[in-house]
Order: sequence, then structure tokens, then C-alpha cells
Amino acid sequence: MAKIRIGIIGYGNLGKSVELGIRQNKDMELSGVFTRRDPSTLKIETEGVPVYHMDQVKEMTEKVDVMVLCGGSASDLPVQGPEIASMFNTVDGYDNHAKIPDFFKKMDEKARAAGKVAIIASGWDPGMFSLNRLIAEAILPEGKTYTFWGKGISQGHSDAVRRVKGVKDAKQYTIPSEEAIEAVKKGEMPELTAAERHRRVCYVVPEEGADLKQIEKDIKTMPNYFADYDTEVHFINEEELERDHGGMPHGGVVMHSGKTGLNNEHNQTIEYKITLGSNPDFTAHVLLAYARAAYRLNKEGVVGAKTVADIAPVYLSIRTPEEIRKNLI
Amino acid sequence: MAKIRIGIIGYGNLGKSVELGIRQNKDMELSGVFTRRDPSTLKIETEGVPVYHMDQVKEMTEKVDVMVLCGGSASDLPVQGPEIASMFNTVDGYDNHAKIPDFFKKMDEKARAAGKVAIIASGWDPGMFSLNRLIAEAILPEGKTYTFWGKGISQGHSDAVRRVKGVKDAKQYTIPSEEAIEAVKKGEMPELTAAERHRRVCYVVPEEGADLKQIEKDIKTMPNYFADYDTEVHFINEEELERDHGGMPHGGVVMHSGKTGLNNEHNQTIEYKITLGSNPDFTAHVLLAYARAAYRLNKEGVVGAKTVADIAPVYLSIRTPEEIRKNLI
Repeated sequence: MAKIRIGIIGYGNLGKSVELGIRQNKDMELSGVFTRRDPSTLKIETEGVPVYHMDQVKEMTEKVDVMVLCGGSASDLPVQGPEIASMFNTVDGYDNHAKIPDFFKKMDEKARAAGKVAIIASGWDPGMFSLNRLIAEAILPEGKTYTFWGKGISQGHSDAVRRVKGVKDAKQYTIPSEEAIEAVKKGEMPELTAAERHRRVCYVVPEEGADLKQIEKDIKTMPNYFADYDTEVHFINEEELERDHGGMPHGGVVMHSGKTGLNNEHNQTIEYKITLGSNPDFTAHVLLAYARAAYRLNKEGVVGAKTVADIAPVYLSIRTPEEIRKNLI
Repeated sequence: MAKIRIGIIGYGNLGKSVELGIRQNKDMELSGVFTRRDPSTLKIETEGVPVYHMDQVKEMTEKVDVMVLCGGSASDLPVQGPEIASMFNTVDGYDNHAKIPDFFKKMDEKARAAGKVAIIASGWDPGMFSLNRLIAEAILPEGKTYTFWGKGISQGHSDAVRRVKGVKDAKQYTIPSEEAIEAVKKGEMPELTAAERHRRVCYVVPEEGADLKQIEKDIKTMPNYFADYDTEVHFINEEELERDHGGMPHGGVVMHSGKTGLNNEHNQTIEYKITLGSNPDFTAHVLLAYARAAYRLNKEGVVGAKTVADIAPVYLSIRTPEEIRKNLI
């Protein structure tokens, strides 16, 4: 059987993880990596696979079945997404929640016109967490859903700390509040803001002679990012930052707490929890499962933009429907 | 908008839970309850809804959109399932894992011939747990999936204890092994039999003058049911059994532990855990979400048997696709 030919658009952390993830999927092969840099400067992990310049994408329509879009959601995907979706089946982890309806619309138009499938927002949040919010709410309508992120590094918050005067480098961990999780588990259905569900821990490398008290104050009072949160600031040196905080762990949990029975006397709790040694690797693996779905759906004649809500799980698996019924149901 | 008219076949614990569950789904209404008993002897919770004898089912094809099959998997569903699927859209929680392919085939034939949809095996295991085994494996192919049941009452094992000489009544709890769960969380990917993943705790009401030592020995050495397990036996009186063990709690967790990275250096763990105050209520709520899917799919012209693997999550939700993209993705 012919393998699904995958193309990677963008070779940052996520693109590298997609490249490695393909090795675990026996029905896929890497056709090429596309970059805006000079292709000759890029060394990838897969021998014999070419690196192309982004300008060459349009010559590859017969050689790639699904393009995995690995650019950022802020500026790359809004431009690249519709462009690539007008030529290829695509999958992406677009994660700007507020703009998903807009992005969906743009991708849908392009993909439909091209007769292709574009699966958007299919990492873990949005993605797996969305799926669990949706299904849990459908099962237990009289209930509340809570999303907790972490423990993991937030890129946006780390960047915010780095912009503080006197800060040389920094990493910021988002950590779910244990008290909040316990309250949800007890079926108390509390009202919880993001600040009540999480705390923030910053590891900061100060510039020489910087005013540490002032840095701490500037961080803890920063509006939106830290002011509403229980925030800790730790000062460390560059070696410690590299040694202890150089990885990309993350994780989180979607919890849904519902009531059932004649007088709502029964508590029912659903938890979907992920603990990730590598955030980009996990996201990449989710994208690849949905790349399989995009390929198969398009083969069946389906076109247009989709989210994880629209994809029957059978399309994600390398197994046949018969094997699934026999071994997994 | 017309509500989805639900019929309930069989009014045991599950049927009663389905009746109550319908109240939480604003797009559904109960059309009738069908029983093999004398309908006049059945008092249901919903005023104004008729109770019919099973023989009247065939007269109701214009009045029920989806039949929720609430009989047992051992003897009821193999007979009732195909019979009802030849007249109505159906949903069931058929849970005899080994016979799911056979049951699927029978339901598929009948449902196709009738132009109806039959969603089978859609409780929590099989059902939600199946879905999570399938998706986790698709995301992390180099990994292992573990299913832990409990803490909860196993009907089959409770019955087995009741058959021991000198036992008047009994309840048996299946409890997941904490050590096994910890080993999986650590990414050790251990090989674990069902007996290594669970322990068993029995609460036994002995007959007057019974030989307690002998009862304990008979239970702990019972092949298949207890001999391989770490089993505890507690003797209590009838009042204690009723007071402390009269409920129907259950739960469990599907864990998938996988590796990613250049040299499989990253551990990734996915956990789907449910903690249920009422096992039949939760199963009923899952069935109702899939009843919505059966109704909608059939309206779109889909026919035949389906499992949870075949259903796109969007069909489970009362929300529109636009609302889902805006609020849940």
C-alpha cells in the first residue's frame, strides 16, 4: 500500500518533532521540508529527504499528500494556512482560540475551492482538550468543565518576563492550583477564573548589578500576565536556567464535573490528563494522526475545513475498522 | 424544533437512568417505556408517558426516533437488538467485548435492511474507554495502553461470592492497584495482567453459624474470579451491607504511556479517568449522547451499525458546529 506522503512547512521545534513523529507511523513517509531560510543551511534528521524553499511549494502538488503546517499562530499560519490549503490537504495546530472561527472560514473557502481537506486547531489545546470538553459536556449537560494547564512552560509569559528591565533571560511555568483541582473533584462546581485555577513560577537570570527587588515587583504587578495570579519569582544563574529549565515539558487536565439522578444526587467526574515530556513532540504526534484523517477523508471525496469535532476517531487509527472493533472497542 | 423522541426498551437500573437522563437533554423527549412485564405494574418517573408491552413495539415506528436498548448483554441484547434494529434507530451498551464483532455484524444487517442506524457498545467500557484507547494509540504508536477498572462493584464477582456455601449476601469491589498505576505513570511500560492491575475486596454477610474461615478460603481460591488476585474478605451484617454498600459507584482509568523523540527520550502520558457516583446513570448519559448522533446521522441518510469509533464528536453535542468552534475548540 502506498504511504501517505507528508510535507513539513516550517522547521522550528514543531517541524522537527513532526519529522521524528513520522517514523512511528508505518503508513507515512516524509516527502520534504519547506523553509523560508536558505535550504542549503538546513540539516534535517532524515537522510535522503530534500529541503525546499517555500517558493517551491507549488511545484510539489503531485508529490505531497498532506502538508503539516508548523509555523506560529500569530503571524505565520494566518498567511501560510490559506495559501497552502489552496493547493494541498493540510493539518495545523492553530491555537489562537478567539480567532478560530475566522481562521476556519478562511481555510474552508480555500480548501473547498481546491477540493482539499484542511484540519485546523488540532494539537492538544485546541485539539485533544477541545474534544474532551465537547464530549464531556454532551454526556453530562448539568455540569461544568474546567481546563487546567501545566505544569509547563508558557512561551508568552516567559517572553513577558524577559522584557522586564534588568532581566537577561527567564522561563515561566504555569502550574495548576491543587486546591482548585480538589474542589472540582469534590463536585463543588466552583466558579474559577484562570487566575484562581493556576499559579505562576518564574526563573529569572538577572543582568549584573540589576535591582532584584524591583524586577520582582515589576513582574508581580504586570497587568494581565501576572498581577491577578499567585506568582513566585526565583533568581538563578544562566547555567541553572539551561540545566534545570532547558526542556519543554507541559501538560494539563480537562475536568468535567456533573450531576445525575432524580434529585441530582450523584456526582460524576470525567478527567482527561496529559503529562508531556516534550510539548512539541506531543503536538506533532496529534497533528500526524489528523494528517492521516485528512488524507483518508479527502480520498473519500470530503473537502473543506474541519476541526477535531468533525473527525470520526476511526480515521485517526492505522488499524482497520474490523481490527478496531476486535481489539480496542 | 421537533424534539428527538426516545423510547426505552427494558426498565431496570439502566432504563430508569435513561429516563432521568432525558430531562437533562433539552432536545429530547421520552415517548414510551417498553417492558416484558405487565405494563400496568410499572410505575415510571415521568408523568403522562405511557408504558407499553414489548409486543407493541412494532406499532410505534412512527412515534419513536431512537430506541435505547437497556437489556442485559448476556441474553437480552443478542435477541432484542437485531429485532428492534430492524424497525428503529437504536443505541445500546452491549458489553461482551469478545462478541462485539458478531453483534456488530448482526445489527449491521438488520439496520441496513431497515434504513436505520444502530450504534452499539456505547457505554463507558466499551464506549468512552474504547474511544480513548483508540485515540491514544493513534497519537502515540510507540506506547502501551492500560485499562484499570474501579473502584466499583462488579456484578459478576458479587454473584460468584453469593454462590459460596454459607454466604447469605455479598458485594465485591474491583479496585485498581496503586503500584501498577504508579509504574505506568513513570513510563516504565510494565507488562501487567488483569490480576496485577487490580485487587478485589469482598463484603460478605454470612449465614448464621457458617464457617467463616472456610468461606474466606473458598472465595480466595476460586479459579478465574479470585485465585490470581490479591483478595480481601470482610464479614459484615445485613444492615451494614445495605447502608455502606448499597450504591452503584464505579469508575476507572485508561492510561496510555508512550515515548517520543530522536531516541525515545521523552515520556508522554495520557490518562482518561472517570469517577462515578452512579454507574447506570453515567452509562445512560453516554447512550443518550449517542442516541442524538444516531438520530442525526440517520436524518443525513446514514444507515447500518456503528461504534463510538465511527461517530464524529460533533454529532454528540446539542450545540451547533459554529457554537462548538466558538466556545469549545
